[in-house]
Amino acid sequence: MAVYTEVTDEALSAFLTDYDIGQGVSLKGIAEGVENTNYMLFTEQGPFILTLYEKRVEAADLPFFLGLMEHLAEHNVACPTPIHGRDGAVLRELCGRPAAVTSFLSGVSPVRPSPKQCAGVGAALARLHLAGSGYTTRRANALSHAGWRQLFELSAPGANDVEPGLADMLDREIDHLDANWPTDLPAGVIHADLFPDNVFFERERLTGLIDFYFACNDYLIYDLAICLNAWCFEPDLSFNVTKARLMTAAYRRERSISQAEIDALPLLTRGAAVRFLVTRLYDWLNQVEGALVKPKDPMEYVRKLRFHQSVLNTAAYGIE
Amino acid sequence: MAVYTEVTDEALSAFLTDYDIGQGVSLKGIAEGVENTNYMLFTEQGPFILTLYEKRVEAADLPFFLGLMEHLAEHNVACPTPIHGRDGAVLRELCGRPAAVTSFLSGVSPVRPSPKQCAGVGAALARLHLAGSGYTTRRANALSHAGWRQLFELSAPGANDVEPGLADMLDREIDHLDANWPTDLPAGVIHADLFPDNVFFERERLTGLIDFYFACNDYLIYDLAICLNAWCFEPDLSFNVTKARLMTAAYRRERSISQAEIDALPLLTRGAAVRFLVTRLYDWLNQVEGALVKPKDPMEYVRKLRFHQSVLNTAAYGIE
Repeated sequence: MAVYTEVTDEALSAFLTDYDIGQGVSLKGIAEGVENTNYMLFTEQGPFILTLYEKRVEAADLPFFLGLMEHLAEHNVACPTPIHGRDGAVLRELCGRPAAVTSFLSGVSPVRPSPKQCAGVGAALARLHLAGSGYTTRRANALSHAGWRQLFELSAPGANDVEPGLADMLDREIDHLDANWPTDLPAGVIHADLFPDNVFFERERLTGLIDFYFACNDYLIYDLAICLNAWCFEPDLSFNVTKARLMTAAYRRERSISQAEIDALPLLTRGAAVRFLVTRLYDWLNQVEGALVKPKDPMEYVRKLRFHQSVLNTAAYGIE
Repeated sequence: MAVYTEVTDEALSAFLTDYDIGQGVSLKGIAEGVENTNYMLFTEQGPFILTLYEKRVEAADLPFFLGLMEHLAEHNVACPTPIHGRDGAVLRELCGRPAAVTSFLSGVSPVRPSPKQCAGVGAALARLHLAGSGYTTRRANALSHAGWRQLFELSAPGANDVEPGLADMLDREIDHLDANWPTDLPAGVIHADLFPDNVFFERERLTGLIDFYFACNDYLIYDLAICLNAWCFEPDLSFNVTKARLMTAAYRRERSISQAEIDALPLLTRGAAVRFLVTRLYDWLNQVEGALVKPKDPMEYVRKLRFHQSVLNTAAYGIE
C-alpha cells in the first residue's frame, strides 16, 4: 500500500487536457503496487488507472514497459492498455513524476489461490510468452541470475541474524546455480513478477495481469519457475503438487516446452527462490524508518528454497 | 491513507451474498478516511464504497451514523447512502469488523479550495443542518467544549515542547471559553468534521459530503465555525476573508441565522480551533511507532487560534 505522491485536482485537470478521455470526476489513491503511486481515476468516460512512477522504477525503462503492455493487449493478453494522449504519447509528466493512464481491469487478486486459479495463471503465462515473441524492444533482466552473487554479498554480513547458517547456505547455493545455470533455453519477454497480487480473477476466471514493471528478456521457463514459487505453496509453506501439476499442464497446453526446459526446471525453481530471497533479505536488513511499505519476511523464501533443494526430479512439480 | 484490514476475495464473495447488488468484480483499498478501512468495490451493478470500521469508531455509534447518512440522502443531501442487505440491515460484519456498503459519489476533494468552493460548502452545510432537523436519533458530541479541558490536561506536560508557552496559552484560552461559552443557541445534527478531504467537487460544483463519523448534536453555528477554520485559511495560514464572506453568505441564503448566533461566532471559531488543537496535540505527543497515519502538526491550529484571538468583531469573518 503506498500513495507516495498526492495529485491535486488542479494538476489532474491540467493533465487530462492532454487526453481525449473526458474530464476527471473522481480520483482515489489505491493500495496497489509498492513501487509506484496508483490512483483509481474516473473520467466522464469511466474508470482508468493513473500511475505515477516513483524513484524505484528507472524512467529509461518506462517506454519498454508501456510498449509491452500495449503490444500484449493488442495480442489479446488481458492487461492494462496505456491510453494515448492527443499527441500520441503514452508517457507524460504529472507532479514532477513520469505518469501514464492505463485501462481499468476488473477482477480481484486472490489471497489464497485455488487450484483452478493456478491453472488459469499457467495458461495466461504461456499466452503472454507467445504474444511477447513479436515485441522487438528488449530489456535485460536487472535481477537476473548473473547479479544474485553481488546482491547477496551486500546482505551476507547480516544474513546469519535472520537465520543461523543462512549466509553459508546461500553462498553454496549461488555457487551451485552458477555452476549449473543453463546457457541455451528458449528466451523472450517474461513478466518476472507474476505473484497473486498481480493477477485478477472474477471468481475462477482470470480477468487480467498487471504490474509489468519487472518485465524483461530471459528464459521463458524461468517465468514458470517464478510462478511455481509464487502460487503453489500453501500458507504453511508446504508445496501443493496438485496446483503445480495444473499450472504446468495448462502452460504446456498453450506453449509446448522442450525436454531441455523440463530438465532445467528444478534448477530454475531454486534460482527463482534465490532471486526473491536475495532482494527480500536486502530489504529486510536495510529497513527504512517510517517507510510506507513493510518489507516481506525473507524466511518465506528460505523455506521455499529448501523445498526445491530437496526435489529429486520434475515429478515433484507435477511433470512426469 | 490507511487499509487496516485486508479483505480476501472469499470473504468478499460470502459477504456480498447478503446483498442484492450483484457479485463483486473488483476491490481496491483506497486512501480515504484515517479512522476506517475503505475499499472501492465494483460489483456487476457498478461502483460502491465498502467500509470496515476499525477500533477508533465506537460500534455503538454506527447505527446513528448510518441512519443519519440515509436520512440526509433521502432529504437530498448528496452523501453516501448505506445499501440495505436482503434482510434490511445496513450494518453487518466482515473480517471480524463491523462493515457497511454505501453508494459511490463522484468528485474530487480540493487540495486548495477556491472561493467558489467555499461558497458551495457554506450552502451544503446549511442544507445539511436543515435536513438533519428531522433526524430524531441523537448522539452527544464526544469532542464537545465540555471535554477540551480534560483532553488538554493529558497533553499539558508536553505542550511547551511543541511551542514554548503553549500550555499557559491553552490553559487561559480554555478558561475563557468556559466562562463565555453560549448556553442557548439553535442546535441539531452537525457534521463536525467537514474538512476539504470530506467534500467532493467536479470542478466548482459540489457533488457530495462524506465521512459522517464525527457527526453529533451540537450548536449548528459551531459547525460553520469549524468550516471557517478548515476552509478559509491559506497555506501560509493567513485568513482569506473573501472565502469566509462567500461561505457565510451562502450559508445564510439557505438557513437564516439569529443575532445570537452571529454574536457567538467569534468565540465559536476560537472553540473550533481549540477542539482540533487539543486532539492534534494529543496525537502528536502520543505517536505510535510504525503507525500507518502520520499525525498532523498541531502548530497549524495554534496559529489559527491566534488569528481568532485577535479578531475584534464578525467583520473579520465577512459578516457585517
